[in-house]
Amino acid sequence: MLNDADAQFAEALRADLPQAAFREVAPRYLEEPRGAYRGQAGLVLAPGSTEEVATILRAAGRARVPVVPYGGGTGLVGGQVLPEGPAPLLLSLERMTAIRATYPSENVLVAEAGAILETVQGAAEQAGRLFPLTLASQGSARIGGLLSTNAGGVNVLRYGNARELCLGLEAVLPDGSIWHGLKRLRKDNTGYDLRNLLIGAEGTLGVITAAALRLYPLPAATGAALMVVPSPAAALELLAMAGDVIGEGISAFELISGQGLRFLAETVPELRQPFADPPDWMVLVDLGLGPGRAPQDALEALFARGHEAGLVSDGLIAQSEAQRRDFWHIRETIPEANKRVGAIASHDISLPLSAIPDYIARASERLAQHGAYRINCFGHLGDGNLHFNAFPLPGEAKADRIAEKPQVQRIVHDLVHEMDGSISAEHGIGRLKAPDLERYGDPSKLAAMRAIKSALDPNGIMNPGAVLRAGPG
Amino acid sequence: MLNDADAQFAEALRADLPQAAFREVAPRYLEEPRGAYRGQAGLVLAPGSTEEVATILRAAGRARVPVVPYGGGTGLVGGQVLPEGPAPLLLSLERMTAIRATYPSENVLVAEAGAILETVQGAAEQAGRLFPLTLASQGSARIGGLLSTNAGGVNVLRYGNARELCLGLEAVLPDGSIWHGLKRLRKDNTGYDLRNLLIGAEGTLGVITAAALRLYPLPAATGAALMVVPSPAAALELLAMAGDVIGEGISAFELISGQGLRFLAETVPELRQPFADPPDWMVLVDLGLGPGRAPQDALEALFARGHEAGLVSDGLIAQSEAQRRDFWHIRETIPEANKRVGAIASHDISLPLSAIPDYIARASERLAQHGAYRINCFGHLGDGNLHFNAFPLPGEAKADRIAEKPQVQRIVHDLVHEMDGSISAEHGIGRLKAPDLERYGDPSKLAAMRAIKSALDPNGIMNPGAVLRAGPG
Repeated sequence: MLNDADAQFAEALRADLPQAAFREVAPRYLEEPRGAYRGQAGLVLAPGSTEEVATILRAAGRARVPVVPYGGGTGLVGGQVLPEGPAPLLLSLERMTAIRATYPSENVLVAEAGAILETVQGAAEQAGRLFPLTLASQGSARIGGLLSTNAGGVNVLRYGNARELCLGLEAVLPDGSIWHGLKRLRKDNTGYDLRNLLIGAEGTLGVITAAALRLYPLPAATGAALMVVPSPAAALELLAMAGDVIGEGISAFELISGQGLRFLAETVPELRQPFADPPDWMVLVDLGLGPGRAPQDALEALFARGHEAGLVSDGLIAQSEAQRRDFWHIRETIPEANKRVGAIASHDISLPLSAIPDYIARASERLAQHGAYRINCFGHLGDGNLHFNAFPLPGEAKADRIAEKPQVQRIVHDLVHEMDGSISAEHGIGRLKAPDLERYGDPSKLAAMRAIKSALDPNGIMNPGAVLRAGPG
Repeated sequence: MLNDADAQFAEALRADLPQAAFREVAPRYLEEPRGAYRGQAGLVLAPGSTEEVATILRAAGRARVPVVPYGGGTGLVGGQVLPEGPAPLLLSLERMTAIRATYPSENVLVAEAGAILETVQGAAEQAGRLFPLTLASQGSARIGGLLSTNAGGVNVLRYGNARELCLGLEAVLPDGSIWHGLKRLRKDNTGYDLRNLLIGAEGTLGVITAAALRLYPLPAATGAALMVVPSPAAALELLAMAGDVIGEGISAFELISGQGLRFLAETVPELRQPFADPPDWMVLVDLGLGPGRAPQDALEALFARGHEAGLVSDGLIAQSEAQRRDFWHIRETIPEANKRVGAIASHDISLPLSAIPDYIARASERLAQHGAYRINCFGHLGDGNLHFNAFPLPGEAKADRIAEKPQVQRIVHDLVHEMDGSISAEHGIGRLKAPDLERYGDPSKLAAMRAIKSALDPNGIMNPGAVLRAGPG
């Protein structure tokens, strides 16, 4: 059984921690972006060093107090809020924000877990390098949380998930011991892969305190195009063609639906639409090329070949960096438009690339059998990652139809499962999807996960209820 | 306590397994390439399916019989041989060799664990794709073993280790349950990363039975050059310059020493040397470029800029694929020359890139203080992975000086540890380096590894003594 992080527990810690570590239990620590959960906390601590994190975990272990690690608070699956049970100790990394070192010749940067993604991107750029992790919440998301949730974003196609961008970790394990694993090595086969076990564990196996991150050369030139395609299947053929025509250098390949463009026109009318008539489907192709190659030429070549093959009917190639940013602004404003329209159910799914057209057709059909919805299907097509979201019809209010949410999610996720996909591509499990993981997860893997959790955190203090629920469900 | 895989145990299994699964205990199963260990086995089983692997592990668990998973037998650290203790069941994957499916449009291939690397490379090429894992033993190494040891090789710089080339696994866990994790997804954040935990675990946490592997586009054009450099520091500067001049597309960047070339001249005189006078240091630069770029032009540009900056004094650019293969043949024959000369001690180390010149200087100096050696330092410089090997002087026999091996290894590894490197870059820990892991490994990580091992394999049947020794050492 776990205990509250009560006044007595806090008092006992005062001898071991500086005053600065004790924070007010402010509302911002207890909210999450989607408003689905309201957290609680008996105590908020913001340690200033790895040793202080260790001190805190040892004390929590002795007192059997639950610990919720807290980064930027931007997670979308409730991993950062503990709504019930004993009042936890919320451990915020907000004071551990240093860029400890930059090694441009090694393409490595070492950042503390509390460093904000934008700060890391900036530090890399100052060193003439690229840290490619890019996502909507980069102004507030912190490195520790991004790694703990194995964040994705728009550049996964080329550079991989957060997991692939991490060479080494420093972390405090549930027993309060410090793992000094901040290696800057490309090859290191010395025992089990603890790094990848902590990455994506959502704070349930320990607290990441610092990371050695991979940097890349800044692309010599960037470019982008919007291309109108007749169907998702054509979009996938165009992606394969882009591989042949352009080779490496495709940084992102995003699918945008007519529904998404109509939502934009409706809710963000000041945003200038690229095509007078919103096409049913289009893709945003983004390039970052090495020396000696012009992105516009490459995109024109792709357009020409795609057009000839009947894969592209219309298109726009950015003539400037400002225009490229405009294209991205369209893509990035879709989630805001969705929010304004009000989804009945949103999803973060992935599928084997070749299954995507079939999935979109079958999922749409199954949903139509269940009820009438507007579907905005968009996302990181190059990674097989779609946000397949269902909305009420025009004139209907979200509130009138929100009761359908569980059935809609069930239909969407059941088909994902049937087609060998994932019910959480980039957002993680958190508390929101813990029941889904029990339903769809491989039983043998789930048993292994529970065994690992018990082995590393026998008292169950680390972020209880996230990823794995207490009972066997 | 564990028991022998004795006749009674074998007999009991006959009811559950086909006759074809029972193999003779042939000597080839008990030998390893370096001749440092001689294994034993009470029984050799070669299951024909994943279900048969599960049957075997369940029986071994009930009878507390040790299981040694066996791939191609090419490992260099004794992970595939159990020299002492109860006679194990040797579980060979040699009959599970199918390429289950190829998905060229997804850049994915699904192979069973017993598939030989060359077969997988060939299947990928037939599908118009590249499976980039490339190493000396590719004619006999099997996918399961390559993943279990997280194999490296010459293309890591560009494509990553075996770990990075695997999207999903099917495996049998120590309790005999089957994990169906053969996903073909680029993004899947559903729980702990069991895939990466099994990769590199060297058969101590379960048996990999199949893998979904990443494929890449075949490069449109390849090229190679040998460039003479004044020092390892200059070689590293040239590597950074190559990134600026050529961008992505550098597949390998190998360091070759004058000592290696002299060993070649001595022991393989029929091999034509590229330079009349063996230079002290040279690099082999290998390129695989996308469409529209000529490797020879890129290499000439690099040579010109490197020459101007004083980083390159001489060089040869391959004028044909045959000549490119000749360059690689030089690099790949160095281990054979080393074998013929006879090393006192060989090492597989990695270091942060910027530490390499300093490491080579300091390690050479420390060894010189200890005794007189010829040092052949070569390897995958682009990955920070060196083979830093010490040889007797001309006229001396290896046997006369082999007693110095432990001290030489200690000197080399101590300095690696001091400089934040790894004592096993690509070969793994096996049985050979289990004591080194205890000496140099992070205590907190080692404790976590032991906890994970106990949790997933409570009876300790899986490859006992590999990676982790029984006692706390």
